[in-house]
Amino acid sequence: MQVGIVGLGIIGGSMAKSISARTAHAVRGFDLDNSVMEAALGCGAVEAPLTAEEIAACDLIFTALFPRATVEWAREHGELISPGATLIDLCGIKRAVHGELAAAAGRYGFTYIGGHPMAGREEGGFANAAADLFDGAFMILTPGEDAGGELLGELERFFAAIGFAGLTLTTPREHDRIIAYTSQLAHVVSSAYVKSPEALRRHGFSAGSFRDLTRVARLDPEMWSELMSGNADFLAAQVELLIGNLSEYLAALRGGDRARLQRLLKEGCEKKILAGGR
Amino acid sequence: MQVGIVGLGIIGGSMAKSISARTAHAVRGFDLDNSVMEAALGCGAVEAPLTAEEIAACDLIFTALFPRATVEWAREHGELISPGATLIDLCGIKRAVHGELAAAAGRYGFTYIGGHPMAGREEGGFANAAADLFDGAFMILTPGEDAGGELLGELERFFAAIGFAGLTLTTPREHDRIIAYTSQLAHVVSSAYVKSPEALRRHGFSAGSFRDLTRVARLDPEMWSELMSGNADFLAAQVELLIGNLSEYLAALRGGDRARLQRLLKEGCEKKILAGGR
Repeated sequence: MQVGIVGLGIIGGSMAKSISARTAHAVRGFDLDNSVMEAALGCGAVEAPLTAEEIAACDLIFTALFPRATVEWAREHGELISPGATLIDLCGIKRAVHGELAAAAGRYGFTYIGGHPMAGREEGGFANAAADLFDGAFMILTPGEDAGGELLGELERFFAAIGFAGLTLTTPREHDRIIAYTSQLAHVVSSAYVKSPEALRRHGFSAGSFRDLTRVARLDPEMWSELMSGNADFLAAQVELLIGNLSEYLAALRGGDRARLQRLLKEGCEKKILAGGR
Repeated sequence: MQVGIVGLGIIGGSMAKSISARTAHAVRGFDLDNSVMEAALGCGAVEAPLTAEEIAACDLIFTALFPRATVEWAREHGELISPGATLIDLCGIKRAVHGELAAAAGRYGFTYIGGHPMAGREEGGFANAAADLFDGAFMILTPGEDAGGELLGELERFFAAIGFAGLTLTTPREHDRIIAYTSQLAHVVSSAYVKSPEALRRHGFSAGSFRDLTRVARLDPEMWSELMSGNADFLAAQVELLIGNLSEYLAALRGGDRARLQRLLKEGCEKKILAGGR
């Protein structure tokens, strides 16, 4: 089939590279940045530019853009998408785009499914995109009622072919609620953690803990502020919950209450063993 | 030379394994747990038990015990240590043990240096100890005035031989202040982070960020509560600072202020690039 990819950053670029390297599907791609287009065409990740005519010929289209740019792209190009084709956006939040994209799908007769690949890298851009970025990752999809079992079966095989471990089917709301915790909160905490004055004195005094706790402080502020602002209700609730939990450790430390501190640490340890993900 | 190691958990056990595997020094060891003693003697990490007579024959002694047990051991066994020998404790906090151990050193004529290897593992115990645990790590030392340049040079070569990348020389106070941030705060944050109810729903919704932010929630509550309680002043200050920083992100989210959120994220990103440690 023909696959169109709009936006060739780390996510769209990795989709293009993995589909071209690992499947027989033809990839058409578009990026606003001419040098990225040249690089994508030059390395074979993209066979040809995704023009208006090529959009109409696509069976499957991915948008890998910021949320607002995704909605704008669908407004401007939705009518070009072939009835019967499938559009999957790859934004990190789903409620912010779902209404408009589902409406466009209804209007023009294509199927819309929200998507979010559970993979990424601190350094973005096409240069850091890789065919193996999605190896072992989950692909989250938020299919509507128009997405039948046959289509989902096809998509499961498609994503498996480019390395994904499996699909996670959910709703836009559940996606945003859980992602606020598993991903967005981690970025807020890393960003806040690294702001202690001790961070600049840590050389020779740190090992894996500091590295892990601050890894994702290195992020694209423009993209993440848009993703977090578009999910502010769920994210703020998680930040507040974490501050509340941290305050319990603080009270135990300030009160010299070692037994309470030990109980708090034990509860966290037990929770971590239940949650897994080491 | 003859090296004595008291306590054969993950740290003392790894010291025994790496010294025996990588140097010509003779290792004598002691652990309260008979099965650990058998395992250490059986695998050759320890040549013979560290008896009272063998303590007197040691040129270098490591204690790899909890802080209070370290002080107790020095009280009971300090007089056995040969004048001219060096005692290095490997506790994760240094102010809590420094006074008593330095006093014992003065009384019995040996040299005391506080130590803290920047390495560890979620799973402790001799079974998880490894000869390569310290490869590429820093060894923090807090030498007093009685530790001359010649001894420090010898120790530098000794620690390099068992894999360390280098020495960090500091004071007990500076050690505790920086470690409160680089290590203890990370354990508090991981432990608090994993307590959100969403942690149990994260399967299929998470990748590296969740894993990294919660990795060290898996810890020994008894040991860590003693280490944190013995460093409560510095650690509480860091927890408070982090709560203050998190509150700024929360205010930006609650106020719908994307520009402020973007600025906060940008500052964190810049700080991370300066601090390094990816």
